[in-house]
Amino acid sequence: MGASEHRLSTAFAHVRQRTLHLAEPLTAEDCCAQSMPDASPIKWHLAHTTWFFETFILEPREPGFRPHDAAFRVLFNSYYNGVGAKHPRAQRGLLTRPTLAEVQAYRAAVDARLLRLLASRPDDAELAALVELGLQHEQQHQELILTDVKHLLSRNPLYPAYIDSPLPASGPVEPLAWIEFDGGLAEIGHAGDGFAFDNESPRHRQYLQPFALASRLVTNGEYLEFVEAGGYRDPSLWLSDGWDLVANGTLDAPLYWVDDGDRRREFTLHGLQALDLARPVAHVSLYEADAYARWRGARLPTEAEWEFAARDAALTCGDLHPRAAGSSGLAQMFGECWQWTASSYAPYPGFAPAAGAIGEYNGKFMVNQYVLRGSSCATPHGHARASYRNFFPAGARWQFSGIRLAR
Amino acid sequence: MGASEHRLSTAFAHVRQRTLHLAEPLTAEDCCAQSMPDASPIKWHLAHTTWFFETFILEPREPGFRPHDAAFRVLFNSYYNGVGAKHPRAQRGLLTRPTLAEVQAYRAAVDARLLRLLASRPDDAELAALVELGLQHEQQHQELILTDVKHLLSRNPLYPAYIDSPLPASGPVEPLAWIEFDGGLAEIGHAGDGFAFDNESPRHRQYLQPFALASRLVTNGEYLEFVEAGGYRDPSLWLSDGWDLVANGTLDAPLYWVDDGDRRREFTLHGLQALDLARPVAHVSLYEADAYARWRGARLPTEAEWEFAARDAALTCGDLHPRAAGSSGLAQMFGECWQWTASSYAPYPGFAPAAGAIGEYNGKFMVNQYVLRGSSCATPHGHARASYRNFFPAGARWQFSGIRLAR
Amino acid sequence: MGASEHRLSTAFAHVRQRTLHLAEPLTAEDCCAQSMPDASPIKWHLAHTTWFFETFILEPREPGFRPHDAAFRVLFNSYYNGVGAKHPRAQRGLLTRPTLAEVQAYRAAVDARLLRLLASRPDDAELAALVELGLQHEQQHQELILTDVKHLLSRNPLYPAYIDSPLPASGPVEPLAWIEFDGGLAEIGHAGDGFAFDNESPRHRQYLQPFALASRLVTNGEYLEFVEAGGYRDPSLWLSDGWDLVANGTLDAPLYWVDDGDRRREFTLHGLQALDLARPVAHVSLYEADAYARWRGARLPTEAEWEFAARDAALTCGDLHPRAAGSSGLAQMFGECWQWTASSYAPYPGFAPAAGAIGEYNGKFMVNQYVLRGSSCATPHGHARASYRNFFPAGARWQFSGIRLAR
Amino acid sequence: MGASEHRLSTAFAHVRQRTLHLAEPLTAEDCCAQSMPDASPIKWHLAHTTWFFETFILEPREPGFRPHDAAFRVLFNSYYNGVGAKHPRAQRGLLTRPTLAEVQAYRAAVDARLLRLLASRPDDAELAALVELGLQHEQQHQELILTDVKHLLSRNPLYPAYIDSPLPASGPVEPLAWIEFDGGLAEIGHAGDGFAFDNESPRHRQYLQPFALASRLVTNGEYLEFVEAGGYRDPSLWLSDGWDLVANGTLDAPLYWVDDGDRRREFTLHGLQALDLARPVAHVSLYEADAYARWRGARLPTEAEWEFAARDAALTCGDLHPRAAGSSGLAQMFGECWQWTASSYAPYPGFAPAAGAIGEYNGKFMVNQYVLRGSSCATPHGHARASYRNFFPAGARWQFSGIRLAR
Repeated sequence: MGASEHRLSTAFAHVRQRTLHLAEPLTAEDCCAQSMPDASPIKWHLAHTTWFFETFILEPREPGFRPHDAAFRVLFNSYYNGVGAKHPRAQRGLLTRPTLAEVQAYRAAVDARLLRLLASRPDDAELAALVELGLQHEQQHQELILTDVKHLLSRNPLYPAYIDSPLPASGPVEPLAWIEFDGGLAEIGHAGDGFAFDNESPRHRQYLQPFALASRLVTNGEYLEFVEAGGYRDPSLWLSDGWDLVANGTLDAPLYWVDDGDRRREFTLHGLQALDLARPVAHVSLYEADAYARWRGARLPTEAEWEFAARDAALTCGDLHPRAAGSSGLAQMFGECWQWTASSYAPYPGFAPAAGAIGEYNGKFMVNQYVLRGSSCATPHGHARASYRNFFPAGARWQFSGIRLAR
Repeated sequence: MGASEHRLSTAFAHVRQRTLHLAEPLTAEDCCAQSMPDASPIKWHLAHTTWFFETFILEPREPGFRPHDAAFRVLFNSYYNGVGAKHPRAQRGLLTRPTLAEVQAYRAAVDARLLRLLASRPDDAELAALVELGLQHEQQHQELILTDVKHLLSRNPLYPAYIDSPLPASGPVEPLAWIEFDGGLAEIGHAGDGFAFDNESPRHRQYLQPFALASRLVTNGEYLEFVEAGGYRDPSLWLSDGWDLVANGTLDAPLYWVDDGDRRREFTLHGLQALDLARPVAHVSLYEADAYARWRGARLPTEAEWEFAARDAALTCGDLHPRAAGSSGLAQMFGECWQWTASSYAPYPGFAPAAGAIGEYNGKFMVNQYVLRGSSCATPHGHARASYRNFFPAGARWQFSGIRLAR
Repeated sequence: MGASEHRLSTAFAHVRQRTLHLAEPLTAEDCCAQSMPDASPIKWHLAHTTWFFETFILEPREPGFRPHDAAFRVLFNSYYNGVGAKHPRAQRGLLTRPTLAEVQAYRAAVDARLLRLLASRPDDAELAALVELGLQHEQQHQELILTDVKHLLSRNPLYPAYIDSPLPASGPVEPLAWIEFDGGLAEIGHAGDGFAFDNESPRHRQYLQPFALASRLVTNGEYLEFVEAGGYRDPSLWLSDGWDLVANGTLDAPLYWVDDGDRRREFTLHGLQALDLARPVAHVSLYEADAYARWRGARLPTEAEWEFAARDAALTCGDLHPRAAGSSGLAQMFGECWQWTASSYAPYPGFAPAAGAIGEYNGKFMVNQYVLRGSSCATPHGHARASYRNFFPAGARWQFSGIRLAR
Repeated sequence: MGASEHRLSTAFAHVRQRTLHLAEPLTAEDCCAQSMPDASPIKWHLAHTTWFFETFILEPREPGFRPHDAAFRVLFNSYYNGVGAKHPRAQRGLLTRPTLAEVQAYRAAVDARLLRLLASRPDDAELAALVELGLQHEQQHQELILTDVKHLLSRNPLYPAYIDSPLPASGPVEPLAWIEFDGGLAEIGHAGDGFAFDNESPRHRQYLQPFALASRLVTNGEYLEFVEAGGYRDPSLWLSDGWDLVANGTLDAPLYWVDDGDRRREFTLHGLQALDLARPVAHVSLYEADAYARWRGARLPTEAEWEFAARDAALTCGDLHPRAAGSSGLAQMFGECWQWTASSYAPYPGFAPAAGAIGEYNGKFMVNQYVLRGSSCATPHGHARASYRNFFPAGARWQFSGIRLAR
């Protein structure tokens, strides 16, 4: 067995194990419910990530392939039209069968088959690349497991905690400073030979005007000033679509702020907590991020500005809830909150998706979405990089999405 | 301990136990999901029926009453505005907490407290009447547990069975005959001193024209003739609101008929089965029942006609799926399918609901609903009677609702 | 030419002329707009009533019939599936062509052809009956012209008046008294040889318990007491479906009450007017009528009770806005506001609709609607009778619908 | 009177007159109806453009200003929150009052007052700039008048023509060629001292990779090949949001293609016409443009590429319906169809909207929209330029939107 194949098997086992670990604090009931069409049941995540390996790797490569369960091909297909029919997204929460235990058995069976396949083809670079893609895919779902379960639990008037441990302390916050950049012709997109998704390529040139980025994320305290100054009552601060959501009552504070009248609290994966003014504001939409920036006389960065600035930033890792910025310089680029940019999600010049169904991974979503950069406290270790392009519709709030100002 | 109090305690234990028994074939996941706003999770049924005893009996009577869990007052309130706030009906499926185990503990605790209360007040007739109401209420939810879980499982492409045992055989069907009634002044409504809901009173006179009822329910085979004759394509057969549902694709066959192209099957609590032409058609809307009757040159009975005819009918009990009519005379009045009537659900002359929140039990639903009479294969033993008034909107289909013709 | 044929021609000319007269105060723009799917443009009413004569009378009887315009068969078909395709109801307001002038020409051409046909077949009783039906149909649309234009103008912030003349004065109101009836076996339904719609037949017996009716309609003043006593804030007064509409803000006062803060006004066909407390409350839903009755410890009458009581009532005629009751005894049965009953709209025992498309006139609407009895200030002279059954969904408010109490 | 002031007065009279001219073929009924919330009644356009001059110019400048009608401030406010309340957009078609004649009188009165103001302040550059903005604004509404009335008339099964004159002939089409561009650092945005909207500034640098543009627009014939090759049935060609619209039946051909079974026709402002395969395809969404491009192995241009290429293109003017490309070289950049780009509508680096309500003109729409470049056959003479940025949501089709390929 070669070293790289060994490394891959080890990574495979590790990533797969971590997914199960994330589901451990949850009951089978918690894992089955779906709180909104955007979110999926945890059990569905466990199965879909397995389906990905089975469908895109085992099926075309395993000699005499037989599906673990023929029905799963449809049940756990997310959005790949090239694979065929899909169970309707909004009805994932009705799949009480297969049970959680059966899905866990599905995972174990596919894991065993995949490790066997890997062992049998130590020099198959295409296979290795697909396994790598599957693991990166699984890491994306690890983050979604956390954000989806947070949303589900937030819909319960009991506000149950995902984990019982207390929220780790977070110190005071550094004052906000502006970091200046000269701009000019910049190279944007993935470089080097590490893994990257297709949407990060090709690397290409962009011309940047001079700009400045805030040294850290906007805090709850700063955002509260905006709220208390009437930010949600002044249409001149808002994009038109955002104001529509304010006017109809959809937006009136960050998603998980809870106002009990006498005091403000925030729902976290550790349960309901006093709102910590030093921590970054999280779970805001692009509309709120943009309105806040306008109110401060600033703006949101473009994704090229952000990437240019992030080139040398430390790939710090998070801890289930955003922490206050404790250092000066360009801080909190990774590991706390994804950062809304002003850039719509579009193909880079010369972008070409992969052939076949797997080409649906990224390209077909390149409309009506906005790019978020960085990573969050829910992003798995090793998954972040400066060229990473996350993307969501402008109104999405259930990710750990925060605000970094630019000007 | 007096005999009647002993009888009530025994009945209480028996009914409460049967509810748990109905949930036994189901996993915690099955018990948590909600397939549509009309249906509720099984766990919610388990908790709500308990809430009924706690809120309407223990709370006002138990010395030093303390709620089992203060949050449950809101979580498990169905529709009693007089009790206060309610968890939104459409979000019952998001309540992964309390867990099924916690709800079972809630049941056990309330059961113990209620039996203690009963023992302490052996001669309290009002208490006894409320417990009786609570048990009748729980029996209604026993039927809903079966119809709601059937709907949930039917939404799963795997079509899981509620019970693994095979569907009991059902013989050939008796030919349909017409039973004639003279009409005249009839007494309608509950008589005698057994239990009845408030909506069955007061007993009063109605004048009936001469009429005839079909001797048995319409069968799958007869209904299939209607389908194959183009019944769903001819607007002249349909009430206007019904045709709208046909035209937009909502109605095109009974709810649980599954058409695989080459053969027709029916989803049952025993899983997917070949469509048995001798059994009664079930899970049709009032619109379909009415269109079918019109196609046959007949009509649906009024509830007064039905009750008048049912006076001496045997209170047969069902077995989870409707069986073919095996006897002549007026058959299948009870125990197979609820029977749509042409009567809208309205108060009887002089109807007065109970005082307080419990008065919301029936009266406030007396609009935009139609009466079904009889009982179904899912109705608990001892719950049916000739004066019983079940009611649903004209488009509802997830109950075991069938068709008895009149003319 | 025989006397009866002459009488019919005269009636035809008179009714047709009155429809045009109703449209006279309106511009072509007023006649084209549609304020909601329930209402139709005035131009559409002008054309549809003409279509009725052309389609059901000229087409099968006129030698060498050729349609005035082949496209009109679809454009102006209201709901007759038996006639074929229909222009979508909600898009009637987009028919800027044919123009109002072209529709007026359509009317004149069909009028001429119909009078010629009538003259040529003086003894054709079936023809005469169809013309009579067409005229009754047109009178129904005359009332709708007034209620639909009132709704349209009410949606305009300028609150334009339909007619510029001042609202005729209306005196003080008689005190409310209760008129007692013994009940017993009553004959209900159309009797005699005057015109009646099919839904008023067959005449049949019903058994009535003793009852009492209020001597007059509920006034604005009385209804205002309900509003100010918090009637719209107390769920115990409401049917469940009605409370849903209160809770979501749909119902909070009669449809055309305008609250400027300092004073209450009411939109009328004479424009915005001070709310006259002596006049009957109008434009309420069945839900509001029922909640008001419950609040007063009363109820709504059944349609049989109403008809039994109305037998000898004067067929008074109205004047575009309800007037205060100025006489004692059973007053305001006709000519002010339609009166909601507790009876759902259902076929009388033995009801049979006419054959062919014209049988769709009434029967197919006999579900999910409630009967209103009497007539309103917008009902044409000669159109009302005691057996008349008007019907609308429980939430409809744009007709002149008011409240008569029973107990 | 100075020459520039004279020129402005003349331009004012000319533009205002042309708007009336566009409404001339229409009846008052045509001018009142609203076919969808995206479109407005023609009468509303006539009034709103007048409101713009009254509100933004007369109100702050005219001595002793009194509004023409105080109610118009709300009725004809489109989307300026800074001005105050707005009549709901979807209810503009219900404004049968003021009448068309009254709106024409409003126009004449404001015209007179504005010309008087202009004459009184010959050297007021700010006034001149605002009048210029108002005229450009009015020209935008001139195009909307044509596209909105086209949409309205298309909803009428009679397919009435806007103008009775025959569709001018259009010759055969030039073969498609590819025009190559080197790319590099390009200056993008408005230059020079002619009028431009705020969203065209500041002029700034962008780096362009080498690219090629198609020499002309995609034709109906070419697009028909896509349709007949199953383009609307292959999800791999579509952006995910676009495929959703295909799957639910919203998209299945260009908006105004009419398929009678035996032959294809196209609704035009000249009425229904045989589909001319040589003319440009028009009225497609971004989704369709993008899917077509993908099917051809091409892509849509970015707005920067388009602008760079268009720099020297002839500002040809159109004639109410797109014409076939009759010349070689880079043709049809202007005057036929707006051209979807791959660029989302976003602020240029350093963009700053004007202060006050007029700053709402463009900036607040910079989300969830895509840029179209060029101009169309409905764009007024003199209104087009290479830096012009039109924008609509990706699904909008009622503009004359076509396809230019890039690669």
